Amino acid sequence: MFESAEIGHQIDKATYKAAVPVLRAALLEAQVDLHESKKIPVVVLISGQDGAGKGETINVLYEWMDPRFISTLAFSEPSDEERERPAMWRYWRSLPPKGRVGIFAGSWYSDPIRERIQGDISLKELDARADQINRFEAMLVNEGALVLKFWFHLTKEGQKKRLKALESDPKTAWRVTQWNWDRLKTYDQLQEVAGHFLRMTNTPYAPWVVVEGTDDRYRSLTVGQVLLEALRSKLASTQKQAPPVAPIVRVDTDGRNVLSELDLKLALEEKPYEQELAQWQGRLSELVRDERFKGRSLVCAFEGADAAGKGGAIRRIGAAMDARQYQVIPVAAPTEEERAQPYLWRFWRHLPRQGRVAIFDRTWYGRVLVERVEGFCTENDWLRAYTEINDFEHEMAEAGVIVVKFWLQISQEEQLRRFKEREKIEFKRFKITQEDWRNREKWDQYQQAICDMVERTSTGNAPWTLVEANDKNYARVKILRTLCERLEAELDDKSAPKSHADAEESDKSDKSDKSKKRKKSGKKSNKN
Amino acid sequence: MFESAEIGHQIDKATYKAAVPVLRAALLEAQVDLHESKKIPVVVLISGQDGAGKGETINVLYEWMDPRFISTLAFSEPSDEERERPAMWRYWRSLPPKGRVGIFAGSWYSDPIRERIQGDISLKELDARADQINRFEAMLVNEGALVLKFWFHLTKEGQKKRLKALESDPKTAWRVTQWNWDRLKTYDQLQEVAGHFLRMTNTPYAPWVVVEGTDDRYRSLTVGQVLLEALRSKLASTQKQAPPVAPIVRVDTDGRNVLSELDLKLALEEKPYEQELAQWQGRLSELVRDERFKGRSLVCAFEGADAAGKGGAIRRIGAAMDARQYQVIPVAAPTEEERAQPYLWRFWRHLPRQGRVAIFDRTWYGRVLVERVEGFCTENDWLRAYTEINDFEHEMAEAGVIVVKFWLQISQEEQLRRFKEREKIEFKRFKITQEDWRNREKWDQYQQAICDMVERTSTGNAPWTLVEANDKNYARVKILRTLCERLEAELDDKSAPKSHADAEESDKSDKSDKSKKRKKSGKKSNKN
Repeated sequence: MFESAEIGHQIDKATYKAAVPVLRAALLEAQVDLHESKKIPVVVLISGQDGAGKGETINVLYEWMDPRFISTLAFSEPSDEERERPAMWRYWRSLPPKGRVGIFAGSWYSDPIRERIQGDISLKELDARADQINRFEAMLVNEGALVLKFWFHLTKEGQKKRLKALESDPKTAWRVTQWNWDRLKTYDQLQEVAGHFLRMTNTPYAPWVVVEGTDDRYRSLTVGQVLLEALRSKLASTQKQAPPVAPIVRVDTDGRNVLSELDLKLALEEKPYEQELAQWQGRLSELVRDERFKGRSLVCAFEGADAAGKGGAIRRIGAAMDARQYQVIPVAAPTEEERAQPYLWRFWRHLPRQGRVAIFDRTWYGRVLVERVEGFCTENDWLRAYTEINDFEHEMAEAGVIVVKFWLQISQEEQLRRFKEREKIEFKRFKITQEDWRNREKWDQYQQAICDMVERTSTGNAPWTLVEANDKNYARVKILRTLCERLEAELDDKSAPKSHADAEESDKSDKSDKSKKRKKSGKKSNKN
Repeated sequence: MFESAEIGHQIDKATYKAAVPVLRAALLEAQVDLHESKKIPVVVLISGQDGAGKGETINVLYEWMDPRFISTLAFSEPSDEERERPAMWRYWRSLPPKGRVGIFAGSWYSDPIRERIQGDISLKELDARADQINRFEAMLVNEGALVLKFWFHLTKEGQKKRLKALESDPKTAWRVTQWNWDRLKTYDQLQEVAGHFLRMTNTPYAPWVVVEGTDDRYRSLTVGQVLLEALRSKLASTQKQAPPVAPIVRVDTDGRNVLSELDLKLALEEKPYEQELAQWQGRLSELVRDERFKGRSLVCAFEGADAAGKGGAIRRIGAAMDARQYQVIPVAAPTEEERAQPYLWRFWRHLPRQGRVAIFDRTWYGRVLVERVEGFCTENDWLRAYTEINDFEHEMAEAGVIVVKFWLQISQEEQLRRFKEREKIEFKRFKITQEDWRNREKWDQYQQAICDMVERTSTGNAPWTLVEANDKNYARVKILRTLCERLEAELDDKSAPKSHADAEESDKSDKSDKSKKRKKSGKKSNKN
C-alpha cells in the first residue's frame, strides 16, 4: 500500500514556484464551477501519520482556494449531543452541501484504526467496519459526491526526523508533544493496521491516494493536482454514473403475497378496544419512564396508504407519553438545505437523543415507495436505497436505538369509503387532493413496492410489523401492543446498556458484542 | 398579577364535554390555515407553578391539535454544545419555523426567576434581564411571530392539595418528588419574584395570560380558547403591524462624516508590509493558541463595498490560524429554512464554540446596508434592526465571545479602477456582474447607510473599526493589528473566564459581573 510513498519524492524550489500560480488559478476556477453548478458535494479526507503534513496541507489548500466555500471539520472528543446518537451522526451532520468542499481532519477511519491498534476490536470486527465504511462511501458517491481520501505516509526514520525538525523550530515546537513521540513506538503497528484497512477500503469509487509526506513541496503539489484533476473530471462527467443493479423480478404465480395474506376483517369492538387501549397506553407510559430506557432511544416509523390511519395511531402513542419526551416528524417534500445533501440526511438530523422518542409520519421508505412508483428518482436510486436503509437502521440499532416500523394496510374499498367520508366533512384538514385520487390508480404498483420493501428491509434489528388497518380499533391496539412488546424485549435484553452513564463507559469495548446480542432480540416481520 | 387566578374558576363536566369538540375542530382548522399560509411561527410558553398543570396542558394541546405541526421544547441541563455559546443560543436553535407551533416547556424566563430566588442576581439585574427579554420578544413579534405566554397559578393551599392528589394516584405519584415539596417552601418567594418579573415583561405585543391551575377543565378550556382566538386574529390581520419608529434625519451641513474623514491615501510599501504582516500573523497565531482563549471565542465581521478587499483580508487572517480552528461564513441569500425564521437566526446558527473562530464575509449588517438601500425590507424592518443587532452582539459579549467588526472603505475611483482591472482578467471568480455596477450608482445612499450603521452600532462591546482600504497593504496590516490588540486586551481582562473549565464552573454566579467588566475593556470606534 505504501510502497510508492517511500521512494523519496521531491520537488525543487524552482519547479514549485513555477507550478503553484498555475495550479492555484486552476483550482480557484474549478471551485467557482463547483459552487455555481451546485451539484456536487466534495468530501476530502486528510489522514495519515503524525508529522506527515496533514495540518500543513489543509492550510495550503486554504491558501490556494477560496476559503468561503471550504469547511474544515475536526473531530476531537464527541460532544454529549453526539455521544447520545449513532457513531456516524457526527459525520452526517458535518457533510458539506452540494457546491462546497468539506475537509475532514479526522474521519470515520480514525476510530476503527485506533481501536484495532489498542486491541479493542478483532481483525474480523475491523473488516466489518471496512464493509460498513465502503457502503457509506458508496452511498455518498451514488448521491453525487466526490470523495477524495488522502493518506500521508512517512518512513519510520522520516517521521522521527520530522518530529525533531518541528521541535527545533520555535514556531512549530508547540505542536510536538510526548503523545507524538509515543506514536512513533507504535509505528509498525499503525503501518500494519492502516495498510490492511486502507486496502480493504480502496474501492474504485473512493480510492485512497497515498502521498509521501517528507517533502512539503511534493506533498502540496500532489494534493493540489489530485484535487484539481478530480474536480475537473467530476464536473465534466455529464452522465450520471450508476452502480450495477439487477432489476427486481417478481412473478405472481398464485396471486398471494404478504399483503394479500393479511386478514383485513380483523376488528375490535368499542368496549374491548377502550380497555385494551388504556392497558397498553399505561404500559407504554411505564416503559418510556423506565430507568433502563434512559440509555436508549426509540424511533417509530409509520408508513401506509393515504387514509390508512397513521395520524390517529400516532396520536394514541403520543397520548401515552409526556409531550416533552417525543417529537412527531411529518415527512414532506425536502427543504432546499435537505436537497443539497444525500437522501438520508434529512432523517439523520432528526434522530433523538437518549431517553427520547421520534415518531416519523412517513419515512425514509418514501424512496422505495412513492419515489419508485411515481418515478421521482431513477430505478438505480431506489434499488440501491434498500441497502442504504438497512445500513441506516443497523447503525441506529448498534447505538441502542430501538427501531419499530409499521405498515398500515387497508383495502382499496376501505380507502374509497374513507375518501368519500372525508369529502363529506367540510374540515379542511380532511381535504382529499387530486394527488390522493391519482395515487389510488397505481394501487397495484404500490402493493408490489410494499412487498419488495418488506422483503428487503425487514431485518432482525428493525422488523416490519404489517398492520391490518381496515378496522381502526384493531390497528391501534396492535400497534401499541407491538410497540410495548418490542420495548420490553429490548429493555430486558441484558446486553443492552442499562443507563446513560453505563452506555458511555462501556461504549467502546463492548459495542460490537452488544449489538450482536441485541440483534437476536429483534423479531422477524410480524403478522399478528 | 395573580388576583383573577385566585377566584376559584371552575367548569363543570357537562359544559366541558359540550365545548371541547367545537374548540378542537376549530383549533385544527386554524392549525391548517397556519400551516398552509406558512407566514407565522407560533411560540407558546408554558410556565408557572409546579403542579399547576403545565405538563397536562401540553398533553391536552397535543390531543386537540395535529401533533405533526407542533414541537415541544424542554430545557433541562444545557448540553456542552449549548454551554459554550451565548445563553440564548439554545432558544434560538429551538424556534419553530413559520407555519409551526413551538411549545416551550421552560423558557428564557426560567433562569432569571430561579437565579433571583437563589439570590444569585440583584433586583436591578433581574430588571435588566426583563428588558433583554422584552427586546427579544419584540423582535420575534416584529418578525411575524405570535408569542403566547401562559403562567399557571395556584394558591399555596391549592398547590399543596394538588401535590397530595398527584401523590395518592399511583399513575401520577412518580411525578412528585422531594424537590416539589421543597418548592412549596419557597412559594411566597416565587410569588414575589415571578409577580414582579411578569409585570415587567407584560408587554402589549407579548402579554402574559395568567391561568388558574386548580381546575383541569377550566385550565384546558382557557388555554385552548386563548390559543384559538390568538391564532385566528393573527391569521386574519392582513396589514403588517409595525412598531412606531422615527425616520433617521441627517443633515449634511459641512459635508463631513466619519467616512469622509478617513485618509484614504494611507499606504504601506511592500517591504514594511511583508514584515508587519508576518509580525501580526505570528502574534495572532499565538493569541488563538493561548490557554486563555480556550474559554472564549472570536467572531470577526467583515463589511465593505464590492472589491474593497474583504476576501484578501480574510485570507490573511486565516493564514495565521489552523484551518481546524476557524470557519469562514460567506453570507449569501438566505436558504428556505433560514427564510422561515427571524432575520438573525441564520447568524446565530453559525456562532462558534469555545476556542473557535468564525469569520463572516458580509454579516447581519446586510439589513441596514443592502436591504435598506435596495428596499429589500421595509423602513420599519431596518430601523428596528439596529437595536436587534446591538442585542445580538451584547449577548455574544456577555458569553465571552470577542466581536470584532471591520468596515473596509474605498473611494469611488478606486472601486472603478478595481472593477476595470477585474474585467480584464478572464478568471471567472473576478466576474463583475450587473449588480455590482448597479450598486455603484447608489454610492451616496450607501455612504449614508454606513454612517448611520457606525453611529448606532459601534458599542463598547463591539466597536466598529473603519479601515482605509484604498491601499490593500495598509488595510490588511491595520486589520490584523486591530484584531491582535483587541484579542490581547480581552485575554488580559482579569474578569474574563480563563479557561473552558473555569467558564463552566463560574458560569452562573459571576456572569453578570464579568460581562460588566468585559464591556469596559472594549474600545470605541477606532479610526486609526
